Amino acid sequence: MMTKMTNNHAYLSHVRVYYEDTDMAGVVYYANYLKFIERARSDALREAGVDQRAMRDDGVVFVVNRVVADYHAPARYDDVLQIETSTLDVRRASAILRQVVTRDGVLIFSADVRIACITVEGRALRIPEIAREALTSL
Amino acid sequence: MMTKMTNNHAYLSHVRVYYEDTDMAGVVYYANYLKFIERARSDALREAGVDQRAMRDDGVVFVVNRVVADYHAPARYDDVLQIETSTLDVRRASAILRQVVTRDGVLIFSADVRIACITVEGRALRIPEIAREALTSL
Amino acid sequence: MMTKMTNNHAYLSHVRVYYEDTDMAGVVYYANYLKFIERARSDALREAGVDQRAMRDDGVVFVVNRVVADYHAPARYDDVLQIETSTLDVRRASAILRQVVTRDGVLIFSADVRIACITVEGRALRIPEIAREALTSL
Amino acid sequence: MMTKMTNNHAYLSHVRVYYEDTDMAGVVYYANYLKFIERARSDALREAGVDQRAMRDDGVVFVVNRVVADYHAPARYDDVLQIETSTLDVRRASAILRQVVTRDGVLIFSADVRIACITVEGRALRIPEIAREALTSL
Repeated sequence: MMTKMTNNHAYLSHVRVYYEDTDMAGVVYYANYLKFIERARSDALREAGVDQRAMRDDGVVFVVNRVVADYHAPARYDDVLQIETSTLDVRRASAILRQVVTRDGVLIFSADVRIACITVEGRALRIPEIAREALTSL
Repeated sequence: MMTKMTNNHAYLSHVRVYYEDTDMAGVVYYANYLKFIERARSDALREAGVDQRAMRDDGVVFVVNRVVADYHAPARYDDVLQIETSTLDVRRASAILRQVVTRDGVLIFSADVRIACITVEGRALRIPEIAREALTSL
Repeated sequence: MMTKMTNNHAYLSHVRVYYEDTDMAGVVYYANYLKFIERARSDALREAGVDQRAMRDDGVVFVVNRVVADYHAPARYDDVLQIETSTLDVRRASAILRQVVTRDGVLIFSADVRIACITVEGRALRIPEIAREALTSL
Repeated sequence: MMTKMTNNHAYLSHVRVYYEDTDMAGVVYYANYLKFIERARSDALREAGVDQRAMRDDGVVFVVNRVVADYHAPARYDDVLQIETSTLDVRRASAILRQVVTRDGVLIFSADVRIACITVEGRALRIPEIAREALTSL
């Protein structure tokens, strides 16, 4: 087990809030934060050299198996949100990422997300080395 | 070419509007009507005995290649919408469906949708007989 | 504080999986379970006589402020999922619901969802009596 | 009526395809192109100085009332799509935009979108001058 205590190397990305993300309460719909943070995970992995499309073609995918999410403050149309993605823990076939969404330093949303590496048939699989390095570096 | 002039046998289905469907304008977000009418197409085909999951496993899918959509009046949270799905035209490898969304008789949305039958590799394919019959019956 | 230990009176509802719900891994996209369970919460409240649209017009809304979600097994296109919604705890201005998604008795997804009652301006508000009774009955 | 024949000044923007955008056919789900092109419209208007959030606070919104959409080729996970947004026509209370989505020069999707300016109560409204100028410049 590798545990990472600091987020010195957290991956930073940004999303803008569009009409599609809002609901009739005038704020970002709660499920859509899971979309935002997955974009950030995809970007973080791509930046670190992991090609999830090629992995998929080889029959290997990451799936989410646990999310602990806290909604701290609402976000609104046209907001630009910052997402900070860091790794809390990397194991043989799974990892836990912490993802924190802020707007101008104000905490909006945070989640701990456990992802697992599996074959498309659903069997647990050791995380490929390049992805392991990418996750460990975050 | 088979052309169907009447919608005597149109397939009727219903959707309820939930939070996820609305946007900050307080109404159903414009893209979500395309979700509603695809649910109706899926239901109509299933009712007629077409198993799209089995088709998919055999490498055959329907794709949409044209949508002409008119937004007549807004729908709101908790509305129950009726969707009437009928076939305008069935050809060798494609068909045109008309889908009309109403709420208590008030016209909300309508679309003509052209679907095509293709292999997962993207090659045009004659519509399977059971699906052809289903489409012709609508 | 009222605590409810049993789910004898859990609210049962169903959703079908459509194309819109799936992703390229062939399974339901992880964020979409939050949509499914919100439909169930909306239905449960409506059945118990709570009119969320009228509440909204009066400037009162429920917001989610915490989700702890576990993904147990994938769901696929055309699956019919059962959702069981029960209340774990009701407090002055918030409540915790447990929502369990199964397919033919197989556990697919479960979540504990904390909702809070607020004014549209964001101030915490005592849960209206009819909604409190509805939540307590689940 | 002002008609614009050329798209010399089309607004260019880009979107990346994420997991959330795909469906079980492995390609971008058909409704999601409407999300992509609305992001482009929002960006084009913002760049031209139109603040849709302030408009909304003043009770004025743009709504889509017609979409004619053609799906030319599929897009896949991780694709970066270019969106070209230009104005075909601007009238008193409505405008028609053409939006063309390509990937490395390959035509993926195109749509003519008619938007109308209305009050939140649904009454047609002359397009505000700054928005009119923005639309005319595209």
